[in-house]
Amino acid sequence: MRKRLVIALGGNALGNSPQEQLELVKSTASTIVDLVEEGYDVVIGHGNGPQVGMVNLAFEFSANNGGCAPAMPFPECGAMTQGYIGYHLQQAVQRELARRGLNTPCAAIITQVVVDPNDEAFQHPTKPVGMFYSKEDADRIMAETGYTFVEDAGRGYRRVVPSPVPVKIVELPILEELVDMHSLVITAGGGGIPVIEKGPGDFQGVAAVIDKDRASAKLALDLNADMLIILTAVEKVSINFGKPDQKDLEQMTIAEANEYIRQNQFAPGSMLPKVESCISFVQKTKGGKALITSLEKAREALQGKTGTLIVK
Amino acid sequence: MRKRLVIALGGNALGNSPQEQLELVKSTASTIVDLVEEGYDVVIGHGNGPQVGMVNLAFEFSANNGGCAPAMPFPECGAMTQGYIGYHLQQAVQRELARRGLNTPCAAIITQVVVDPNDEAFQHPTKPVGMFYSKEDADRIMAETGYTFVEDAGRGYRRVVPSPVPVKIVELPILEELVDMHSLVITAGGGGIPVIEKGPGDFQGVAAVIDKDRASAKLALDLNADMLIILTAVEKVSINFGKPDQKDLEQMTIAEANEYIRQNQFAPGSMLPKVESCISFVQKTKGGKALITSLEKAREALQGKTGTLIVK
Repeated sequence: MRKRLVIALGGNALGNSPQEQLELVKSTASTIVDLVEEGYDVVIGHGNGPQVGMVNLAFEFSANNGGCAPAMPFPECGAMTQGYIGYHLQQAVQRELARRGLNTPCAAIITQVVVDPNDEAFQHPTKPVGMFYSKEDADRIMAETGYTFVEDAGRGYRRVVPSPVPVKIVELPILEELVDMHSLVITAGGGGIPVIEKGPGDFQGVAAVIDKDRASAKLALDLNADMLIILTAVEKVSINFGKPDQKDLEQMTIAEANEYIRQNQFAPGSMLPKVESCISFVQKTKGGKALITSLEKAREALQGKTGTLIVK
Repeated sequence: MRKRLVIALGGNALGNSPQEQLELVKSTASTIVDLVEEGYDVVIGHGNGPQVGMVNLAFEFSANNGGCAPAMPFPECGAMTQGYIGYHLQQAVQRELARRGLNTPCAAIITQVVVDPNDEAFQHPTKPVGMFYSKEDADRIMAETGYTFVEDAGRGYRRVVPSPVPVKIVELPILEELVDMHSLVITAGGGGIPVIEKGPGDFQGVAAVIDKDRASAKLALDLNADMLIILTAVEKVSINFGKPDQKDLEQMTIAEANEYIRQNQFAPGSMLPKVESCISFVQKTKGGKALITSLEKAREALQGKTGTLIVK
């Protein structure tokens, strides 16, 4: 009986241009296939921050400057990045699987994730997206569209969108079929294309960004994974980070993790959502564990040699 | 035992802007779900001509005019359209399935299609893509990149890419798993992301456009479909098209179809590749048939009331 992993890939596993991304996904694929070789069924979730920004900007620039391509709504930009990143990732993983003589089928699935329109995040949009505008242009676009703009560190005004929590993964039945057949699935790219459910089965895109670690935790829960692995820039989670008494953690219970959160040990927008995502998975699952480590150390961490394990 | 259909959707089933596409896919989805209601397992292939042009132009315009998004290689643009069109199609199909109380899972799969680098199409690129350039700019870019440009009807110079034949569908094992489970799969968008196979399992994108009808015929063959349906703007295939003795065809054998082709009855770039794709499927399959009709008449045609059937 093969065990099931859900891996959340951070931005450092991808790249800022198509050429850079094609290079970076090679080592990402090597790590992923390491875990297949260790005997696990693997599901990959990934971020899309720089990529969705790039797509959004290309269309916005064209629409604002007399190009013939129209402006592109935010959910559609997210869908494009699922195709773009999924293609690079699956190609790199297929190459690495073939190199090692493994014949696991692999593909990326276009994935919508439902959010609650009453999520309080919609009252407080926080995620900056798209171009910088002057105050006059921002005011005009706000009046025309209802978008929210905020001043960004003296560089101008930028649109912000909400970051609601994931409620349901629309394509879960497809994912279950594929994982049950031991295929390697790439899904919920960028946290999933955010949609609201207007009626049963009636989904509609909304301008929002779902945190990819939260979406991966939801995936791990719904797919009954044995482990959620969040890959990031550091090998272990630390407390007193950057201070003389910094301590790298080998393991945290949920109670300990919650206590560290109360002590503000984890930076919001950085380690905090990762630890929270791990807690949410471990709390609700039966026997599942979560692991935070770096891409480079993933195999060793899975063998219990490094990384930070979050347990009940 | 449910029968299996592969449907090739033409450009008229999609749209030229995100808003238009969201509207158009509603009636497309209605036809697709009609066929599910008729008791068939459905696989959808689709074109991406206007959409991949739009994505390519947005990035090209940004890169050429001081925007911050980079130029985007052609295979990556195709991958983006698979995400963009797949998202709209699957959402519309899911809505229609739910409305009729059907619980068929549905999702789009990012799909690479292998072409032969020795395909003679690479010697004669014919598909125009991207922006119009002056002769000087076109000459400069040709020298820098090796791209081929052609003069386009007095409007300037445009890059052309080859249209090679599909050799292998990389993600076929994933498609087989899903179709065997009676899921509704959207795949090979735009004819598939064109790749060459440098070694076993080692794929690399190439700038090319695979004809979506040819790719759908390959899909139908590889998935052992009972029928290939090519949806287009007309209800039936005609001979002596537009002449006083125009005759709409209810059925053609392969021999008849080949004879009509010898008579130049079908326009290159329009009905000819559709008829050729049907011939290639019917010739190689055991007992499979092909059908050419319009989106609006698909259900009636499947019931044998209209359309043009291509049989052995």
